[in-house]
Amino acid sequence: MRALPDSVQNLIDAFARLPGIGPKTASRLAFYLLKAPDESSLQLAEALEQLKSQTQHCRTCFNVTSAGQEQCEICASTNRDESILCVVEEPLDVLAIERTGAFNGKYHVLLGVLSPIEGIGPDQIKIFPLLERLKDGKVREVIIATNPSMEGDATALYLQQRILPLGIKVSRLARGLPVGGDIEYADQNTLLRALAGRQSME
Amino acid sequence: MRALPDSVQNLIDAFARLPGIGPKTASRLAFYLLKAPDESSLQLAEALEQLKSQTQHCRTCFNVTSAGQEQCEICASTNRDESILCVVEEPLDVLAIERTGAFNGKYHVLLGVLSPIEGIGPDQIKIFPLLERLKDGKVREVIIATNPSMEGDATALYLQQRILPLGIKVSRLARGLPVGGDIEYADQNTLLRALAGRQSME
Repeated sequence: MRALPDSVQNLIDAFARLPGIGPKTASRLAFYLLKAPDESSLQLAEALEQLKSQTQHCRTCFNVTSAGQEQCEICASTNRDESILCVVEEPLDVLAIERTGAFNGKYHVLLGVLSPIEGIGPDQIKIFPLLERLKDGKVREVIIATNPSMEGDATALYLQQRILPLGIKVSRLARGLPVGGDIEYADQNTLLRALAGRQSME
Repeated sequence: MRALPDSVQNLIDAFARLPGIGPKTASRLAFYLLKAPDESSLQLAEALEQLKSQTQHCRTCFNVTSAGQEQCEICASTNRDESILCVVEEPLDVLAIERTGAFNGKYHVLLGVLSPIEGIGPDQIKIFPLLERLKDGKVREVIIATNPSMEGDATALYLQQRILPLGIKVSRLARGLPVGGDIEYADQNTLLRALAGRQSME
């Protein structure tokens, strides 16, 4: 016997299509909204509808920005160091690095990562616009902040080969033990990286 | 520096207001939708908008049902045993019990639980409509399936005191070790209940 009205089942299905949300969490969310005041679901619905119509990619760095704004706030800012450029895979990575408060340069968002298995080559992500940006000679250092994964490594290597000949310094985020981590539980690869990248304490 | 456009931040905030979704999951969901095809967010938005407008409570058992349907499918069904009634806290509990396939009676959804601390008394939940339903003498047994929590226990006790005088059998879901559980890791209260409710193997 179908115990649920269509409108509830539709919402459960829609939630369950999101990453990391299984059918149980999806029904918990749907029933929570069913009990909550109407505004809760309407606010979420409105935010969802505006998501695509009111955002676009910054034409310089490809981070997300409000619709109608050609450049994102970071690209438009004059307070940021133009000589250092941090290359990330996704807009979320910009957020994570901004949260540290330790980087005052500019960004370039690749909107993806090289992945021969999935057929994603340099044309599919924003690598050529990056190389184009570097041509004016303002950038002295490119920090490659792709994920420490196989695809991230391959992308970093490719970028290094394309950027070094331009006479620009290329660096990559350090790999090692995460702060608060435990050597006992560190996986072999992380520990290998931590050993290889050990820092002198002079 | 504000690194996010308002429309993205609004969606993150709206997601983060849902139970069990923290700020990190909320931003992951928002950025997933930003990358996904437009339909993903629009389908979810539509499902949210229709949630409230296209559902109502069954006037008999207070489960959710499609708008315009006075009775839910279970109440309207003639194939179900009218003499046995299962009382649950929330519509989700009906779903869980239906999934077992082991219950062929009807339901009554309290839409809450007695909680003196939060000021929820018998008037705030659907207890009186339940007692009203029992008056016609058709129901022989009421299974109380409130949660095995303090509030669930209090509600069960209250219902027992009100229903027993009507000459109706009252039972409650068994408490004990969960299937697949481990005695070693069972908490003291569960083990106490399992001992007290031990079943003869004759």
